[in-house]
Amino acid sequence: MELIDKLNWRYAAKAMNGEKVEQEKIDNIIEAISLSPTSSGLQPFEVIVITNQELKEKIRPISWNQSVITDCSHLLVFAAWDTYTPERINKMFDLTNTVRGFKNEGWENYRQMLLSSYPQKDAEVNFNHAAKQAYIAFSQAISAAAFQGVDTTPLEGFDADALDEILGLREKGLRSCVMLPIGYRDTEKDWLVNLKKVRKSKEDLVTVID
Amino acid sequence: MELIDKLNWRYAAKAMNGEKVEQEKIDNIIEAISLSPTSSGLQPFEVIVITNQELKEKIRPISWNQSVITDCSHLLVFAAWDTYTPERINKMFDLTNTVRGFKNEGWENYRQMLLSSYPQKDAEVNFNHAAKQAYIAFSQAISAAAFQGVDTTPLEGFDADALDEILGLREKGLRSCVMLPIGYRDTEKDWLVNLKKVRKSKEDLVTVID
Repeated sequence: MELIDKLNWRYAAKAMNGEKVEQEKIDNIIEAISLSPTSSGLQPFEVIVITNQELKEKIRPISWNQSVITDCSHLLVFAAWDTYTPERINKMFDLTNTVRGFKNEGWENYRQMLLSSYPQKDAEVNFNHAAKQAYIAFSQAISAAAFQGVDTTPLEGFDADALDEILGLREKGLRSCVMLPIGYRDTEKDWLVNLKKVRKSKEDLVTVID
Repeated sequence: MELIDKLNWRYAAKAMNGEKVEQEKIDNIIEAISLSPTSSGLQPFEVIVITNQELKEKIRPISWNQSVITDCSHLLVFAAWDTYTPERINKMFDLTNTVRGFKNEGWENYRQMLLSSYPQKDAEVNFNHAAKQAYIAFSQAISAAAFQGVDTTPLEGFDADALDEILGLREKGLRSCVMLPIGYRDTEKDWLVNLKKVRKSKEDLVTVID
């Protein structure tokens, strides 16, 4: 299957060559992010797309000085909602009613159920739940890039508080959770590019109950 | 792009028709899970693949009685490590050395860095981190299914403690975090199948910093 071939081709690029990724390919990656399924359809995250070189230079020191931060074409930051609020929940439910053109009792009951439970939970619990939804989109972005022959570096190793500060995320009720440099691998400089992909055996990964 | 077409085609099936999904397609979904990137390559999760009908019947009542649990072809349960232990970390680093056929100082230093930090952290923090990695794989499973014209229902709505009990996960140091029924949509019975997909505007999703 073509998708599997592409997932085999991909790896976490440790060096990129600075080449720009075509806008059409970036648009497809954004579309894949947008199409990602999320819990109750809330899409509880935003994505910051950085091409500004000065800003990338500022982010590199708080990301273990990884060269992909500055040598990538587009740096994506996935920032999840810091908590669930009635406003945020209502906005998505209202949008659904608008797009579908009708109100539905079951759907409205479901809205009330979320309104009576999510906002009352601890903000940290809510952020964690929202972050997981961001990871679903993050993963689809990686697949969509690979499918187009574009490299990515899934990247958790950064100071999230410092990044939030640099990007002014907290004021917007957001917290960074994961980054994705997008670009093209530098095969000369990358120590990882020629090493074998390592995965645990299927026996250690999967248990079948027939 | 073909992948985008397939992601547009997919939706969270609310009714499935009981038809079996071909083994080759299931194998591709498992392969996509296996190929998913994870933090430090630890793959801190396992996947339980359930086709046993009796077991599905047991799980349905603790999952809001959703019909897809019993009407799907294969029910996947993603179970993350309950914490990071030295044994689990060492196993993956040793496997890497075996597969690649050499030891590398930088890699060994990185192992020591993880060993001196991860196992000391709170188990809940570690489980949460491991669960996020499981979500990456969960997302790739959804994409790989859609790419083959196979339906899925991303499903967080279940009693995780009860599921852990039914599957005996805690004894294995695992905790369930998300489920994925796989099968074929029942277009007659599914209220969602003909409704428009709703996504927030690109303006609300993406901020570009050029």
